[in-house]
Amino acid sequence: MRSVLRCLVVGLALSSGLLGGVAPAATATEQASLTEGPLTIAKQGSFFIGGREESSTSLGRGKSAAPPGTITVDQVYVRYQTPPRAETEPSVVLIHGCCLTGKTWETTPDGRMGWDEYFVRRGFSTYVLDQAWRGRSASDPSAINAVADAHLPIESLPLVSSASHEGSWVLFRFGPRYGEAFPGLQFPVKAVDELWRQMVPDYAAGLPKPNPTVPALTQLAQRIGPSVLISHSQSGIYPFQALVSDRRNIAAIISIEPANCPDSKADLTPYKGTPILVLFGDYIGESPGWGHILQGCRDYVDAMKRVGGRADLLVLPEIGIKGNSHMLMQDSNSLQIAGLLVDWIRKSAR
Amino acid sequence: MRSVLRCLVVGLALSSGLLGGVAPAATATEQASLTEGPLTIAKQGSFFIGGREESSTSLGRGKSAAPPGTITVDQVYVRYQTPPRAETEPSVVLIHGCCLTGKTWETTPDGRMGWDEYFVRRGFSTYVLDQAWRGRSASDPSAINAVADAHLPIESLPLVSSASHEGSWVLFRFGPRYGEAFPGLQFPVKAVDELWRQMVPDYAAGLPKPNPTVPALTQLAQRIGPSVLISHSQSGIYPFQALVSDRRNIAAIISIEPANCPDSKADLTPYKGTPILVLFGDYIGESPGWGHILQGCRDYVDAMKRVGGRADLLVLPEIGIKGNSHMLMQDSNSLQIAGLLVDWIRKSAR
Repeated sequence: MRSVLRCLVVGLALSSGLLGGVAPAATATEQASLTEGPLTIAKQGSFFIGGREESSTSLGRGKSAAPPGTITVDQVYVRYQTPPRAETEPSVVLIHGCCLTGKTWETTPDGRMGWDEYFVRRGFSTYVLDQAWRGRSASDPSAINAVADAHLPIESLPLVSSASHEGSWVLFRFGPRYGEAFPGLQFPVKAVDELWRQMVPDYAAGLPKPNPTVPALTQLAQRIGPSVLISHSQSGIYPFQALVSDRRNIAAIISIEPANCPDSKADLTPYKGTPILVLFGDYIGESPGWGHILQGCRDYVDAMKRVGGRADLLVLPEIGIKGNSHMLMQDSNSLQIAGLLVDWIRKSAR
Repeated sequence: MRSVLRCLVVGLALSSGLLGGVAPAATATEQASLTEGPLTIAKQGSFFIGGREESSTSLGRGKSAAPPGTITVDQVYVRYQTPPRAETEPSVVLIHGCCLTGKTWETTPDGRMGWDEYFVRRGFSTYVLDQAWRGRSASDPSAINAVADAHLPIESLPLVSSASHEGSWVLFRFGPRYGEAFPGLQFPVKAVDELWRQMVPDYAAGLPKPNPTVPALTQLAQRIGPSVLISHSQSGIYPFQALVSDRRNIAAIISIEPANCPDSKADLTPYKGTPILVLFGDYIGESPGWGHILQGCRDYVDAMKRVGGRADLLVLPEIGIKGNSHMLMQDSNSLQIAGLLVDWIRKSAR
């Protein structure tokens, strides 16, 4: 009965043209089960990776004062879902960008399915994390309290920042000016307030380099097995740094609109042999700063190809997919793009 | 075929005594599906409730400096799963306590199923939130940056605290001294490091009263329909405050080890008519501070009964369930206790 229903859905989708367009390669049966009907998962849960103990004399102050004690910081929160029969695929690890959390990959601002569920429906065990010091991954309040109690100078306050609506609008390439959208923009700007609610303070500028999220990635890969690390924006360089430090179980890297790619003039040996895809959306030329970033990634991918590496660069408008913002996992065609990634993984990373 | 397998599992469980003990009332078929086998969900996702826009001139500093702009704060992150046929039950909303996030209710420190999944398997749409200014619910970094840039005096730094391992061990009633467990303790102390990784800085002491989480609860209930608000510890008073402000769709309150109950001498009229269960674990007499809290809740429940309210107090050792800590949703018998709550909801809140 279920297969009859699926066939009906597929038939309707085909006749209405929903399965046309650029996204290839999902079978009709797969396509029908992507966004329709109940989801069966074999296992789900959450855990932390990494973390170190820190002794502190400044865990609180005033009414919240506390005796000296130990806290754990630098750990990375991970939530996962495993579909039935996932053992034939690598796992997918979704790593959010600046000023955001793992929520990035969940339900879109306008209420559609997020990539976290889409990859599960396509057969991948999917892991979503909160970067160290962000979201459910603890930061350390000690410096704030030590300054408040005059035990440390003001300069010891942690570097922390939040992205404004106005700045993010332009940086995320929704449009040339706050409130003004690019023609053909795929981001659901009517629901942008729900994106603003996703944004949280970001301590990354003051954290050690590499970010503690990087060793957590290598530890995560050892724990869960062959993994495709999918990064976004700020976290773009993290999977590359993880690969250099310990390549075991890093099956592939997909770098979505990275803030930077590895230096094309550096020793590229550590990156060879691992399939790498760098992906960009639209409006690069119309938006300040992005052309330089894209050029750096072009240089890296070209250099990788010259040394026999397995790197691809995909700029969506160059294959006819237009209107994508920096937040392309939330754009109206987000599942089409995720479908492209599934195709690439199945072709390149197995 | 599936029902045959279920029957087999039930038979094995019965013959091995797994279904004996105190927890009553789940049918054999239900019991077998609780922790066994794949989970089918009709729908899942995440969203935010509430939030207000804040103009700030201090979103960053130093290398992270930014022009003035707008951020959104006070919103509450909510993740949910809905099982098939959930419409016959109220929804369940899980509200964590001090220094923790919604992770509280997910996979236990020693890797067992959390209440977030258990309630789904028992047929309830289940919503897990991060309190305002905690986890995936944004805090505001402006005061930190304004002090760092000498635009505000040091006294303007936010009140923020983290709980130490040492203090939490005693407060959570794992034992009389850090590292020493009470005899018969149900908390999985061998995995306590995973609990420490769950703990995050807590801004609640400096937030307006009621906590912005409280109006978010009333808005959430309007959005999702009849709801059982299940609080823990610090958040214990929030559902009561929500009920006083807007009782619509609050089907019941379950207050697990609340930091405080409503004042027994206050006007109890707003609480009448709503089923209320207050639940405590073991070792109250052996642990500083807890006897006073339990007495306050006894007084409240007694006063409610005198005015014809529907309040129950359940102290687990008084019904023969021993060894439970303050973190009873993570104790080794956590699902037995959740089963008691399901029974209470089905009896009292439908």
